[in-house]
Amino acid sequence: MKCALLDSALKIKAKSLFITKSFNNKHKLITGIADSINSFILKQDISRDSILGVGIGLPGPVDALKGVVHFLPNIPGWREVGLKKILEQKTKLPVFIDNDAKLMTIAEHRAGSAKGYSNALCLTLGTGVGGGLVINNQLYRGFDNSAGEIGHIPLNEYGPVCGCGSQACLEAYVGNSRIIRDAHKLFGPKITLEEVSSLASEGNSKAIAFWGEVGKKLGLALSGIVNLLNLDVIVIGGGVSGAGKALFESVKQTVLSRAMSVQAKRVRIFKAKLGSDAGIIGAGYLVKERLNR
Amino acid sequence: MKCALLDSALKIKAKSLFITKSFNNKHKLITGIADSINSFILKQDISRDSILGVGIGLPGPVDALKGVVHFLPNIPGWREVGLKKILEQKTKLPVFIDNDAKLMTIAEHRAGSAKGYSNALCLTLGTGVGGGLVINNQLYRGFDNSAGEIGHIPLNEYGPVCGCGSQACLEAYVGNSRIIRDAHKLFGPKITLEEVSSLASEGNSKAIAFWGEVGKKLGLALSGIVNLLNLDVIVIGGGVSGAGKALFESVKQTVLSRAMSVQAKRVRIFKAKLGSDAGIIGAGYLVKERLNR
Repeated sequence: MKCALLDSALKIKAKSLFITKSFNNKHKLITGIADSINSFILKQDISRDSILGVGIGLPGPVDALKGVVHFLPNIPGWREVGLKKILEQKTKLPVFIDNDAKLMTIAEHRAGSAKGYSNALCLTLGTGVGGGLVINNQLYRGFDNSAGEIGHIPLNEYGPVCGCGSQACLEAYVGNSRIIRDAHKLFGPKITLEEVSSLASEGNSKAIAFWGEVGKKLGLALSGIVNLLNLDVIVIGGGVSGAGKALFESVKQTVLSRAMSVQAKRVRIFKAKLGSDAGIIGAGYLVKERLNR
Repeated sequence: MKCALLDSALKIKAKSLFITKSFNNKHKLITGIADSINSFILKQDISRDSILGVGIGLPGPVDALKGVVHFLPNIPGWREVGLKKILEQKTKLPVFIDNDAKLMTIAEHRAGSAKGYSNALCLTLGTGVGGGLVINNQLYRGFDNSAGEIGHIPLNEYGPVCGCGSQACLEAYVGNSRIIRDAHKLFGPKITLEEVSSLASEGNSKAIAFWGEVGKKLGLALSGIVNLLNLDVIVIGGGVSGAGKALFESVKQTVLSRAMSVQAKRVRIFKAKLGSDAGIIGAGYLVKERLNR
């Protein structure tokens, strides 16, 4: 869990990383989140009263208005958790929660690669493959605030089992756990995805082909989305987006060959600008906008 | 080509069918459309002056504002045709054009099965598989007015060639030309899709399985869309939607098993209410709204 302090202009003033692996059940994790926030604040050189609020991004569908986590696909045991209320009691601060990919989307649309585009998809490649949609310059939430689950678009009728309970979802092919497994097969059991990215940028053909294959899967899912939504821009963030040209060229080539011509020519495909800080900056926008500050 | 006269309340007063098969090139087809409109008007018991305008739905991506047909996937030779201007010269009436599935969507949202829902997908199953999206109660067009091409969402990475130039698109599996071919293999070379629908409603297990298979393909594409858009309602129209329970139960079952739980539980799936008249009624809305009448 990343924890950061932002000023009123949403500049990051301090940042810490908390390991959540040891918080191995729901109760411990919630307590761990609250304790991490409280101890992080204690370490800062500011008075608690000057903190407007806490914004939290979560890897799963969230009711942002009620502050309830519906569930977390990659963390078992979370079902309809009223996290906002619990954390407000434990931190004595206003807490706002949202889906992490939605926060990244807000940040990239206001201050990043999607700035100036009306209809945008921002997606984040990591353990999960999440996304957010901007339609007519507004974050599009859908009825249950659950829109944007691009990781769970099927790539095939049948295929690998997915954490969501379905099969052959995009995430089951390009989520980190799958591609790290593929990388281990190709490059040996100790390689990291960052190392495969470095190899690709150095011209290693096996590494370029590896990211090319990831790009083909991702590009295929995006082809269906641009046919459906005739988007202006797609922004790709998250750890895997660091793979660079080998990944992006493959995504673009696949969209050009698989999407319809009008839609394929329209859509720009960019790397996220705010990098790993997008979620944090989006959480800042969340707090400011919900408090009208 | 269906041609209809609607009154100011968009009630259909007269309707004719014109066979376009003999208009076997672009020029002949355009002339044929204009002649059909002119001869249809002559047969009506009204003065030409009392006609507000002509609304036309076309099976492909259209620039509705400029009145240009980008192309027609199932009719060769049409590329960037300024149909509005040509037909206005030939009919001496204001002409408005739009994609046929968008007109059906407008009609179903204003007066049909999607009435009262904010976020809707309307799709039409026929030779082509088209669609239209309503987002926050507005028809969502996308940058080039080309949004809604649900027929060209890929169902698999590899599969049957599609008219759009790609492969494995939904339309390549459930478009009429494909399913009629499948029906001929199963039921003999003379059967019509209407007859397969009748068989299914009479309890014929082979016919029920046939529509079940179509419903599984369609339901899979819809699962990706509801995961992405968290829609309130999906309305299915076009000839094949007449297949009834065997088709709809399979679609609903597939969405429940393949889409994420929150999205799957939210979305209602209905048959289109306005039937084969939806496009005509939508064309009426098009004329009225563009002329502010």
